[in-house]
Amino acid sequence: MTEAQTNAASFLSRLKGLWRDIARSDGAEKIPALSPGLPDGDLARLRIQMEACLDAKGGEVSARARAAALGRAYLSLSAEGRARFLKLLAGAFGPDRARVDAAAAALGEAREEVARLRAEMELRQALEPPRLKLLTQFNALPEGVKFLVDMRAELMGLMRDHPDLAALEADLKGLLTSWFDVGFLVLERVTWRSSAAVLEKIMQYEAVHAIQGWTDLKNRLDSDRRLYAFFHPRMPDEPLIFVEVALLPEMAGNIQDLLDPTAPLGDVDKADTAIFYSINNAQRGLAGISFGNFLIKRVVDDLSREFKQIKTFATLSPIPGFRRWLDGRLTEGEPGLLSAAEHKDLTRVTGGMGAKGSLKALLAEPDWTAEPLLAQALEGPLTRLAARYLTRETRSGGMAALDPVAHFHLSNGARVERINWMADMSPNGLAQSAGLMVNYLYDLDDIEANHEAYSATGKLAVSARIKALLKG
Amino acid sequence: MTEAQTNAASFLSRLKGLWRDIARSDGAEKIPALSPGLPDGDLARLRIQMEACLDAKGGEVSARARAAALGRAYLSLSAEGRARFLKLLAGAFGPDRARVDAAAAALGEAREEVARLRAEMELRQALEPPRLKLLTQFNALPEGVKFLVDMRAELMGLMRDHPDLAALEADLKGLLTSWFDVGFLVLERVTWRSSAAVLEKIMQYEAVHAIQGWTDLKNRLDSDRRLYAFFHPRMPDEPLIFVEVALLPEMAGNIQDLLDPTAPLGDVDKADTAIFYSINNAQRGLAGISFGNFLIKRVVDDLSREFKQIKTFATLSPIPGFRRWLDGRLTEGEPGLLSAAEHKDLTRVTGGMGAKGSLKALLAEPDWTAEPLLAQALEGPLTRLAARYLTRETRSGGMAALDPVAHFHLSNGARVERINWMADMSPNGLAQSAGLMVNYLYDLDDIEANHEAYSATGKLAVSARIKALLKG
Amino acid sequence: MTEAQTNAASFLSRLKGLWRDIARSDGAEKIPALSPGLPDGDLARLRIQMEACLDAKGGEVSARARAAALGRAYLSLSAEGRARFLKLLAGAFGPDRARVDAAAAALGEAREEVARLRAEMELRQALEPPRLKLLTQFNALPEGVKFLVDMRAELMGLMRDHPDLAALEADLKGLLTSWFDVGFLVLERVTWRSSAAVLEKIMQYEAVHAIQGWTDLKNRLDSDRRLYAFFHPRMPDEPLIFVEVALLPEMAGNIQDLLDPTAPLGDVDKADTAIFYSINNAQRGLAGISFGNFLIKRVVDDLSREFKQIKTFATLSPIPGFRRWLDGRLTEGEPGLLSAAEHKDLTRVTGGMGAKGSLKALLAEPDWTAEPLLAQALEGPLTRLAARYLTRETRSGGMAALDPVAHFHLSNGARVERINWMADMSPNGLAQSAGLMVNYLYDLDDIEANHEAYSATGKLAVSARIKALLKG
Amino acid sequence: MTEAQTNAASFLSRLKGLWRDIARSDGAEKIPALSPGLPDGDLARLRIQMEACLDAKGGEVSARARAAALGRAYLSLSAEGRARFLKLLAGAFGPDRARVDAAAAALGEAREEVARLRAEMELRQALEPPRLKLLTQFNALPEGVKFLVDMRAELMGLMRDHPDLAALEADLKGLLTSWFDVGFLVLERVTWRSSAAVLEKIMQYEAVHAIQGWTDLKNRLDSDRRLYAFFHPRMPDEPLIFVEVALLPEMAGNIQDLLDPTAPLGDVDKADTAIFYSINNAQRGLAGISFGNFLIKRVVDDLSREFKQIKTFATLSPIPGFRRWLDGRLTEGEPGLLSAAEHKDLTRVTGGMGAKGSLKALLAEPDWTAEPLLAQALEGPLTRLAARYLTRETRSGGMAALDPVAHFHLSNGARVERINWMADMSPNGLAQSAGLMVNYLYDLDDIEANHEAYSATGKLAVSARIKALLKG
Repeated sequence: MTEAQTNAASFLSRLKGLWRDIARSDGAEKIPALSPGLPDGDLARLRIQMEACLDAKGGEVSARARAAALGRAYLSLSAEGRARFLKLLAGAFGPDRARVDAAAAALGEAREEVARLRAEMELRQALEPPRLKLLTQFNALPEGVKFLVDMRAELMGLMRDHPDLAALEADLKGLLTSWFDVGFLVLERVTWRSSAAVLEKIMQYEAVHAIQGWTDLKNRLDSDRRLYAFFHPRMPDEPLIFVEVALLPEMAGNIQDLLDPTAPLGDVDKADTAIFYSINNAQRGLAGISFGNFLIKRVVDDLSREFKQIKTFATLSPIPGFRRWLDGRLTEGEPGLLSAAEHKDLTRVTGGMGAKGSLKALLAEPDWTAEPLLAQALEGPLTRLAARYLTRETRSGGMAALDPVAHFHLSNGARVERINWMADMSPNGLAQSAGLMVNYLYDLDDIEANHEAYSATGKLAVSARIKALLKG
Repeated sequence: MTEAQTNAASFLSRLKGLWRDIARSDGAEKIPALSPGLPDGDLARLRIQMEACLDAKGGEVSARARAAALGRAYLSLSAEGRARFLKLLAGAFGPDRARVDAAAAALGEAREEVARLRAEMELRQALEPPRLKLLTQFNALPEGVKFLVDMRAELMGLMRDHPDLAALEADLKGLLTSWFDVGFLVLERVTWRSSAAVLEKIMQYEAVHAIQGWTDLKNRLDSDRRLYAFFHPRMPDEPLIFVEVALLPEMAGNIQDLLDPTAPLGDVDKADTAIFYSINNAQRGLAGISFGNFLIKRVVDDLSREFKQIKTFATLSPIPGFRRWLDGRLTEGEPGLLSAAEHKDLTRVTGGMGAKGSLKALLAEPDWTAEPLLAQALEGPLTRLAARYLTRETRSGGMAALDPVAHFHLSNGARVERINWMADMSPNGLAQSAGLMVNYLYDLDDIEANHEAYSATGKLAVSARIKALLKG
Repeated sequence: MTEAQTNAASFLSRLKGLWRDIARSDGAEKIPALSPGLPDGDLARLRIQMEACLDAKGGEVSARARAAALGRAYLSLSAEGRARFLKLLAGAFGPDRARVDAAAAALGEAREEVARLRAEMELRQALEPPRLKLLTQFNALPEGVKFLVDMRAELMGLMRDHPDLAALEADLKGLLTSWFDVGFLVLERVTWRSSAAVLEKIMQYEAVHAIQGWTDLKNRLDSDRRLYAFFHPRMPDEPLIFVEVALLPEMAGNIQDLLDPTAPLGDVDKADTAIFYSINNAQRGLAGISFGNFLIKRVVDDLSREFKQIKTFATLSPIPGFRRWLDGRLTEGEPGLLSAAEHKDLTRVTGGMGAKGSLKALLAEPDWTAEPLLAQALEGPLTRLAARYLTRETRSGGMAALDPVAHFHLSNGARVERINWMADMSPNGLAQSAGLMVNYLYDLDDIEANHEAYSATGKLAVSARIKALLKG
Repeated sequence: MTEAQTNAASFLSRLKGLWRDIARSDGAEKIPALSPGLPDGDLARLRIQMEACLDAKGGEVSARARAAALGRAYLSLSAEGRARFLKLLAGAFGPDRARVDAAAAALGEAREEVARLRAEMELRQALEPPRLKLLTQFNALPEGVKFLVDMRAELMGLMRDHPDLAALEADLKGLLTSWFDVGFLVLERVTWRSSAAVLEKIMQYEAVHAIQGWTDLKNRLDSDRRLYAFFHPRMPDEPLIFVEVALLPEMAGNIQDLLDPTAPLGDVDKADTAIFYSINNAQRGLAGISFGNFLIKRVVDDLSREFKQIKTFATLSPIPGFRRWLDGRLTEGEPGLLSAAEHKDLTRVTGGMGAKGSLKALLAEPDWTAEPLLAQALEGPLTRLAARYLTRETRSGGMAALDPVAHFHLSNGARVERINWMADMSPNGLAQSAGLMVNYLYDLDDIEANHEAYSATGKLAVSARIKALLKG
């Protein structure tokens, strides 16, 4: 465990102490065990318990104990039972409609400034649902914050089928947005001296380049690597978002070398480049509450301070939507997708393959990677098309890059620097991006201006190399 | 510094690291120095800066830097300038009224359930003022949370004269209520090994029985004493609320002995009683966000665990409103205030004093404390009247004790146990409560029921001794 | 990482800071790279460097830097080179013989008391070899203490062939004995939240019941288990000695159940017994510097405080020397080793096996474990013989139990409580102790008296059950 | 408390846990209370108890408990009783003389190399007194290390009158030298956030420029100041040695400005000089175990890292022996002490004073400081004489500067940089050094060479300015 996590751990252990008695207090036993599916009778009993939490009978300390019991009851339910629990919370503990309507009417009639202000305040209060208080009380559970984060993850999964849960989800999102303000988060370097509990979570949450086990993990924590994560003091074992960094003597061009466990240890003193090769949001329940830009900014700062000689900060990123987009173009048969020269070149090497030699067919069968001539012929057009995909294909009316990873880094002020051929030869890498990866460069002097241009006008920063490729 | 404070300190120091660059970033220089009184020209520039924070131009990291600069600017203003700053924030960054009105109208027209829910959500969002986002961004200041707490204290002072600040104050209260949820607070024992920075604050914030200096403080942290405080991780040097406890072989009957620096050190192993002799709310800006009941409950738990032999938990409390109430009765000339026997007794010892011997006159001149016979004659009636004041005089339609300290402890589930004669002979103690003090007893078995009865019906728990006194 | 390890880690990291510059200082480069085998030329250069450390030229800070360089040079040598390094240290940096002889002569002549005392002091100083100062200076290495511990482990391996290293080894033992005084050690509970670096070491050092991987380890750290270790503040990643404990509702009778990863989690609240099922000395270089007795005493204290209901503290221990001893008896053909009844019983079930049915032959082939009747017939005699081996077979002239594990626990004040049949069915368990294990019981009331009797007279504490077994 | 002190505190608190039971165990009661003066009967009982500690009856854990009881008994004794205690320890628990003599004889007869080595080892062991083990056992006391440090301070005070305590003192010094090896010490920055317990000790131990109270102390911990101390993990509240530093825009020329509580806060960003204005050894019991040079080196390193722009590291030091030396010269009437020009100059301004105007008489009456003309006339000769005293007056056969502070800094590699007139106008400053102070400069590039030259040949480093002064 790094130091600050220990601090957080100590903090949590004291909080646990704080609530241990509450959680064990007799309030806990007031809910007889519920059936996992939460049949109607149980639902009725649950409602009474929820009301008791809001009444704060016996004092607020006792109310918290009851809320903790309610939380434990929730955890014991089946998926169906939980949905019923949440619908009860959403349906029966919303705002008092009569009060809302009265306040809305009063607002309509307010004429003077102060009256208007008062009416707005009253209406805002009337709209604040009682269930929000109950959600807050769950903070009494020893792992209460994590409980609420996970509850939101479940809610998001249920919302499609249960639109009446939207308001509850919005309440929870509001609460978590307040609690997870970046001002409360702690950036930690995760190392081999970190807690096994945290490392286990890192392994579990790494979704970009899966970690194969403790040995692979240890390799990623070696002296030429860095792993940074944001933590919340009330969730010390749970990384919120983390980034893996390699310190290298040059910009990395493929992921295979980076992940090779047999590669020799790099000499950090000779590194002048930091490559962010994996960024993972670890908590589904915090979707939409973003701190990725803060993380990158902070890690760049930290590394700058520690290593004066590191001047280049860049990512080695997947292009997750490239193949899907390209397949669409190929299916549509977009004219001019390949230039005449590219077409000719490709025909030359696939001449004998007939229909199997079409770009579409080739991509569907990843055997081309094993054929040097074929691969060589594909490199030019695929790289060019990837550059086009990344820099010209947009959504949101041209204001945002189509590729989500591109959008994230461009929003943060990076520029599209280099596209790398045969950079991720894993099955997933081939399937999503034909083995291509991209470096986004964070140039400290340009970050603000890049961000500004991108977010104001959708104009994205592109290296000369990429521009040449596009003209190519 | 106790351990958890160090943790918190380390947490804060990392947070400071987190924001150091932000705070120093060029955003900081974008506000030219403001005149302390904030004349109109400066106000206009300030407004532009506030808008820039909300636009998040240059990215959220930069916006936080600008908010930090804004915060520093606020601190440089005079009282008048601050009021103008706050009024700008309150006036120019409220909800978009057109949007609010449209949403209110839509609410009126929503017929189906889902439409109603959506309309409520939209109205709630419309009512959320942009200034709330700005307040949150102040969290980027190194001491951002304390900054907001103090800003609220200032706001509360201004509200009487500036009712248009009420909504801003309500926003801030809501934000602080969320951030200071008791689930995020850390209970710490403060000792002589605590940080001098914290101890200095304790001395400064003790308002019940003022601390005379470091020697007096050290005495209150001796091995037969305890001092507990709640802290927030982002305000590690700032106690939120604290309680001073003496471990004694019997229930304390006066404050003089407790505060006597020359008293010999008590033998903790022989103590069976914990006396809470001073409870202080330290942050005016957190008024109305209560955690006193949690503090007492937690300290009782902690002491129970540490000292198996301690069975009695009680306070030694002032009766701050007694004299004011009694003077009112005396001025009104309430018939039967003194019983005939009491009257006769008093007349006997003050016979020669004439009008100067009336109860009213005696209390106005505290010389009576030096006259044994006089004091003896006063003890009966004053003690009885204090019991009446504490247990029978109410406000809020009979639902709450008139005395605020009594109300606090009765709400927490304590009972009025014993009234102590000549228990606080300080000028303040004589002026407020004729030298009387009261023990409130926390009987672990009765706390919930006492609380329940008191908060539901206003019925308060009273010892047999007090009941006897009332019967007189 | 548990808290105190983090403290230690933080301590170490600061110490590293302390010595970083020293270690990197130019002194480090003053030794040109040595050949691994340390040929004569290099040896001569090394000697000059060693002398420079002792001269403290350039000040003590520089001398430490040179010692650190020397330490790194040692680490770069081959086994042969290291032996030469150590022999140089032992041979060339011993006491000044002329001074010793003069002091010894002076001692012989000292007549008066004060003269005698002075002569003794001078002789003692004369005998203190300069190399001791150099060993101390190695403390300047970032992991200097571990370096010295490992150096002693190497020395002990070399001493048989190089008796001239004995004095150097004795110097180092003296130094480590002083530094590892139990007053400086920290007892830590190791958990799943401990540092992966520490957990990796636990896995590596567990020699009694090997840990199969991270999953097996996590199982041994579950809530019904405890793992405690002593650490030294300067070796925070290195457990010195550790003990694994299971919290159970009864005394454990076999190791298979304890190590079964599929066993359900025990209910700690129902546990009344703590079983110490594995104790490991982790540092060979600390051989002969014992803290095992302190460890057990401390863990018993800690568990007693945490779990009031735990009343029984016992081990589940191997009997490592049983089979060797028994095989000796069988080879000698000791008359009466088996009783007539036992013999008859055994013959009955192995009748058809002839010579293969002898006890000696049966034990050599562990197939008997699969034959219920055979196993049943063996249980009686083997259990009885194990009781005899543990309680009656001695060394050191009858003052110590022959079995080393028995000796350790008896020295600590435990008593031989119960012998368990089919308690360790691993190949090793069968080979060493015919599958038997023993519980040593730590009865808090008897520990001192047991220890006293055992260490003074060799009399060992034995349960009634074992006594009955011995009477047969 | 700074972080590492907290770590140390936590470390200590765990150690205390470790020994609490030991210290409270019944061993503690085995010594009936001793009379403070330790009469003969008590002495006999004490001897038995000491022997019991060494016998380790009941096991080593119990022996430690008995040693702790012994330690507490020591603390309860009067000065006379303690001397008797120590003499008992010194006299009755020395080496076994018969064994020593036999070993010395064997040494004389050893011919072969291995025999000689063995004889030396045996003799060394024979000379190791049993009391050393007992001293080590005192480590079991909760504050055992501090106990031993203070015991050595007492021993040193007694040695003059009791030469038979010398060997005991030497034992203790050896033990403490091993335990306080600089590799085990932690450098801490002490701040206003440090523990009040530590700050109280700093106030108490500051002997160079006494601290007037908490306000003065807080001033010395302000943002333009630094205070660093070495701590031992087992004495977390006790600084071992500490240095106070001012960060300034130029080299400080007098102490008045530095200690002025009303001086405005310096701007650290503009400081290019670090002035070490007070260095204090805090533990008399560690006399002769030096770490001052390590402290200065470390603080220089720390400040260099934190403040890139700080280039000058120098002291502002007293010249404690100047007046004593000068008075000697004046009494002797050394011819040519003043130059003719100086003499004439002085006569001119003191013409009317007659004999009262002699240098000797003037220095005896510090009124001259109030007479500008007089002071002006004295500046030249006194500064020149101070330069001579510092750089030319030696002891130890010319190998060491006569002034002890000069010797300390010159040994550390500093050079005599500048002498400051009217630099310490306190009564003590006038009495010791006629108000003069000196800056010793630590030039990182020259430290090693300076140290080397000084320690090898006594040649000291002197600035051009001082050289010019000497030439006069």
